[in-house]
Amino acid sequence: MKALRYHGARDVRFEAMDDPVPESDRDAVVKVTACSICGSDLHIYHGHGFSEDMGFCVGHEAVGEVVEVGRAVQRVKVGDKVMLPAAVGCGACRSCLAGNVANCEFGLGACYGLSAKLQGSQAEAVRVPAADMNAVKVPDGVSMEQALMMTDAMATAWYGARRADIRPGSSVAVIGLGPIGLMAVESAFVMGAHVVYAIDPIAERRAMTAHTGAIVLHPEEALDRIKEDTRGAKLECVVEVVGSDATVDLALRLVARRGTVSVIGVQQSRRYAFPLERAFAAGLTFRAGTCSVPEELPALFPLVQSGRLKPERYISHRLPLSEGAEAYRLFEAREAGALKMVLTPG
Amino acid sequence: MKALRYHGARDVRFEAMDDPVPESDRDAVVKVTACSICGSDLHIYHGHGFSEDMGFCVGHEAVGEVVEVGRAVQRVKVGDKVMLPAAVGCGACRSCLAGNVANCEFGLGACYGLSAKLQGSQAEAVRVPAADMNAVKVPDGVSMEQALMMTDAMATAWYGARRADIRPGSSVAVIGLGPIGLMAVESAFVMGAHVVYAIDPIAERRAMTAHTGAIVLHPEEALDRIKEDTRGAKLECVVEVVGSDATVDLALRLVARRGTVSVIGVQQSRRYAFPLERAFAAGLTFRAGTCSVPEELPALFPLVQSGRLKPERYISHRLPLSEGAEAYRLFEAREAGALKMVLTPG
Amino acid sequence: MKALRYHGARDVRFEAMDDPVPESDRDAVVKVTACSICGSDLHIYHGHGFSEDMGFCVGHEAVGEVVEVGRAVQRVKVGDKVMLPAAVGCGACRSCLAGNVANCEFGLGACYGLSAKLQGSQAEAVRVPAADMNAVKVPDGVSMEQALMMTDAMATAWYGARRADIRPGSSVAVIGLGPIGLMAVESAFVMGAHVVYAIDPIAERRAMTAHTGAIVLHPEEALDRIKEDTRGAKLECVVEVVGSDATVDLALRLVARRGTVSVIGVQQSRRYAFPLERAFAAGLTFRAGTCSVPEELPALFPLVQSGRLKPERYISHRLPLSEGAEAYRLFEAREAGALKMVLTPG
Amino acid sequence: MKALRYHGARDVRFEAMDDPVPESDRDAVVKVTACSICGSDLHIYHGHGFSEDMGFCVGHEAVGEVVEVGRAVQRVKVGDKVMLPAAVGCGACRSCLAGNVANCEFGLGACYGLSAKLQGSQAEAVRVPAADMNAVKVPDGVSMEQALMMTDAMATAWYGARRADIRPGSSVAVIGLGPIGLMAVESAFVMGAHVVYAIDPIAERRAMTAHTGAIVLHPEEALDRIKEDTRGAKLECVVEVVGSDATVDLALRLVARRGTVSVIGVQQSRRYAFPLERAFAAGLTFRAGTCSVPEELPALFPLVQSGRLKPERYISHRLPLSEGAEAYRLFEAREAGALKMVLTPG
Repeated sequence: MKALRYHGARDVRFEAMDDPVPESDRDAVVKVTACSICGSDLHIYHGHGFSEDMGFCVGHEAVGEVVEVGRAVQRVKVGDKVMLPAAVGCGACRSCLAGNVANCEFGLGACYGLSAKLQGSQAEAVRVPAADMNAVKVPDGVSMEQALMMTDAMATAWYGARRADIRPGSSVAVIGLGPIGLMAVESAFVMGAHVVYAIDPIAERRAMTAHTGAIVLHPEEALDRIKEDTRGAKLECVVEVVGSDATVDLALRLVARRGTVSVIGVQQSRRYAFPLERAFAAGLTFRAGTCSVPEELPALFPLVQSGRLKPERYISHRLPLSEGAEAYRLFEAREAGALKMVLTPG
Repeated sequence: MKALRYHGARDVRFEAMDDPVPESDRDAVVKVTACSICGSDLHIYHGHGFSEDMGFCVGHEAVGEVVEVGRAVQRVKVGDKVMLPAAVGCGACRSCLAGNVANCEFGLGACYGLSAKLQGSQAEAVRVPAADMNAVKVPDGVSMEQALMMTDAMATAWYGARRADIRPGSSVAVIGLGPIGLMAVESAFVMGAHVVYAIDPIAERRAMTAHTGAIVLHPEEALDRIKEDTRGAKLECVVEVVGSDATVDLALRLVARRGTVSVIGVQQSRRYAFPLERAFAAGLTFRAGTCSVPEELPALFPLVQSGRLKPERYISHRLPLSEGAEAYRLFEAREAGALKMVLTPG
Repeated sequence: MKALRYHGARDVRFEAMDDPVPESDRDAVVKVTACSICGSDLHIYHGHGFSEDMGFCVGHEAVGEVVEVGRAVQRVKVGDKVMLPAAVGCGACRSCLAGNVANCEFGLGACYGLSAKLQGSQAEAVRVPAADMNAVKVPDGVSMEQALMMTDAMATAWYGARRADIRPGSSVAVIGLGPIGLMAVESAFVMGAHVVYAIDPIAERRAMTAHTGAIVLHPEEALDRIKEDTRGAKLECVVEVVGSDATVDLALRLVARRGTVSVIGVQQSRRYAFPLERAFAAGLTFRAGTCSVPEELPALFPLVQSGRLKPERYISHRLPLSEGAEAYRLFEAREAGALKMVLTPG
Repeated sequence: MKALRYHGARDVRFEAMDDPVPESDRDAVVKVTACSICGSDLHIYHGHGFSEDMGFCVGHEAVGEVVEVGRAVQRVKVGDKVMLPAAVGCGACRSCLAGNVANCEFGLGACYGLSAKLQGSQAEAVRVPAADMNAVKVPDGVSMEQALMMTDAMATAWYGARRADIRPGSSVAVIGLGPIGLMAVESAFVMGAHVVYAIDPIAERRAMTAHTGAIVLHPEEALDRIKEDTRGAKLECVVEVVGSDATVDLALRLVARRGTVSVIGVQQSRRYAFPLERAFAAGLTFRAGTCSVPEELPALFPLVQSGRLKPERYISHRLPLSEGAEAYRLFEAREAGALKMVLTPG
């Protein structure tokens, strides 16, 4: 088969690779019908891989069709349309079975496409470990593109909003308006936010946010404007979707007394200069973390089925998988309003 | 002054009455600028009063302007625009101060317009006991008509939806589509319901519900349709807004395993034949109750200010207070699409 | 093998039966090392079976050792010490995998020992369907007798207390002081109750409750005493563990405004005359239901391991399985302080 | 009257001062019958005052008897035994009325004894602003010493434990074993912790903790021991009661994936080097803050009345107020097992 393989910074190639095969009788092989590029794929693309491996297949967002199952697989069968949550569980421990992959009792929670150990899914096919858990049948009323958006980005946005303690009537800010930030804005409204401030330095992104009903702001004007609008009280819930010290700092400046900051932007800051005295005086809650995708799906499926969430509208490009290198280039440059790039095997 | 006074079944008269005066230095007098008729006023109108008194002034939904304050009143002053929550607290105990009038430690929680003890507010003016608590300044960005809707109906609708355990992604039914039911439908969507079934036997009311996005059903078709739509699972949350044994029964038939039924229709059923074996097998939660209005306001104000809730659209009639008797007649007959009847003193 | 078999009212016999065998490659066979009699077994013993079958093996509380596993079984192996939760899940749907057997998506939630379909575990051995889910390894620090108590009774007691909304500082009543009621008293204290009233008409049972720190009362004195102690406020949380209309009624009389009644006594009341007007005036929450055992285990294991809960102290009798008929007789008569009867095969 | 007055670092003098008088008709004057020294008083004692004032009266923990009330005061009267919560509310805004002083809508939340603006209560008498809110009648069944402990220390301990998300079955650590830490240990058990690790470098303090049932550890051994005991999982809930970067760091090392750290040690760290990448990988919740005392009292009163919490046992010294300077000296030196120092006016 052919797949997108990593050969170093800004060097992703569409080339031949061994066909995936089950490594245990609990595995399945899925023929990929669509996959997509995540913001965190850019970390690897920039040469900051999570491993020293070379030549491995990248990507962790994919949907497709089951083409082979090990004999112990019970819940999916050949021909099933499935989505592959980015967060891969062992499928055997109590935490994983409940969807909480992050707390796998055996420490086996994993992600596709970070090393040669678990090949990525920007490929014509992919091995799915513990397929009973990690291949999720796409429910009726959910399109394959919607399912693709829920394998990571939509689930992460929802998780981030949830962890900001958004309640009906809350005031909210979302910092960073890529696809996840945009979906966090929508999630906040579905959770009952009465107002959402959507903050990003790039004018084009702010423009793309207008349809959501959020108030769009440049980071430099955000604090003054929000203090004015709220008579100094600021906002109960802030979702940070960027992952830099500056945006975490902004989040902590925008939050009201007793409010909550939820950081979902991927963090590589070993030590962030946290304003502890201020947080103490204000009685803040601060959360950071990544999403265990399967945990979020029970709430997301009906909201997508009923059209209250429309993650598919943040797909900006649809390209053949063979043009994956170009897709990465466009995505990195944020050219042409790049949001979610979907790649389709030939 | 003049006021609507109760003289027996279907006999409400606009006639002279003593001007209200403070009875303690904690009271205020409010000149009513608008008041309205509640479904529960019909119980009195039908001669099922909550007291044996005659000639008392009816009504418990009003807004107006403070015209006199006792010397111990600190939080409102003459000239303030205020709303008068139907649920009146003692203003001194911890429960009332926290807004939980229902749990007044001295058992002094009360309501206007049920007897001569606390005269109603369908009048040109009304005495407000413990005005620091019971007269709430109308916040900026909330119109007087919106405030009027929040003195009881909107707060009750919100409370009913809240007590049905509605979460983002929930499936919901609302039984009974008067103003409170319609606002419960809206509340359910704001709380994140992915689907709301709105049920009423009257076709005209179902038609008025269409704009909300709910699926409207006649009670007789509800169970079959909901079972079909949900493949037998039925609905997680049901709000009952009628107050009859038949509708409570329907609520308990429509709810899913582990679901919640919230009854806010005024109950006069001393003993309802509860399907306990079935509730036990299904692991249900069943709640009934009336709202402590001040408790709900902190969530409601921002949602109304931002336009996520629009209670004023359920005002169907605006009449002079002097035509109160006619307003009651129209409301009872549900003529001309009667929803909320607003009465304005001359 | 030999087992306790049901032959009609008060006719349980220890006699030969076919050895259990796996019916699918997901099943296991467990050699029973201890089993016990549950209050709900008495319903069957009294001839009110849940099926028309005769000769089936009774019982749904057991622990033992795995002696055979189907080839698809992955999480337990021959030789493992296991407990068998009374609530049996399909082991394949999302609800069951998360421990919520009551909501099995395929409606396959079941219980041992109610019919010939799923033979009981008051036997020398028992077939365990979907053993990956339904055979739970006994963790370190939990004795086999503690595990036995958690297969049903302790989990039900905990669930009942949980569903009464007990919080640190709550006031609580528990009605019915069999083993489950006694463990509900302990659970209430672990959850932070500041006071627990333990209510039963049988003096001997009240005496056995004294060590818990609860205030023991006869049902006839309960209402007056509790009103006096609480100055009329009554109790925030009431757990009903009997299953009769009279005790449900008492529960609803003892609960405070805005309080919660949790019914876990097995209900066969098709229509209970619920005091709806009163519940409405008081804003009550009413819950009924049975426990999905696996859901409760994550909280219970550490509490038993650390000795905060000691379910084993409610074992009153240990008898050979061959004396099962006598054990049922003693248990029915509540002779000799019968609480939990443990039966040991050969 | 005489009072303890601040004259610079380590210079607190018992000397004459003007008698307190009401400054508004909402104030009261309370004759102090007992007051106590808080760990945060040491910050002032060490010369790190919260103001530049000299000669003001220190202290914020006191109980006493009302000797004068302004005419607008309604809920307390001369002769009432009262406790004075350290956190002083405006008594007029919705937040303060609900007990949430920290969120006073007018920003008027305050504390006694930090400056000349609101004199302290280590005195023979003290002015209490907005006495309806800030003077709390001591309930029946609560001793004056218990009430004194609840004016700050016990309420803070409870708040800290609450904000660590302690649930029945949780595993907990408390870092710092002064009176607040010791009461946090007790609070954790009341909330249902199955195990509490109590950590302090001072052997004498660890010895004083033994009776609580906690496992006592030196900070240097804590991480290894806890990892071993929990097979690497570490603890769900950590309460930090010291206020140094080192102890906050330890807290963040001891917490399990998805766990919560609650910081109640008074923070003066403007920028703490927070391990953000690690917190992100582990999905942590981090909270810091001080307590709004009145909010905690509804849960605390019944727990103290029933003896589940015994804050009075952490009183180590009882001295005349006239020996206040010596009390400060002993407390600073932690001599003779100094925990809570109670001072009694002549």
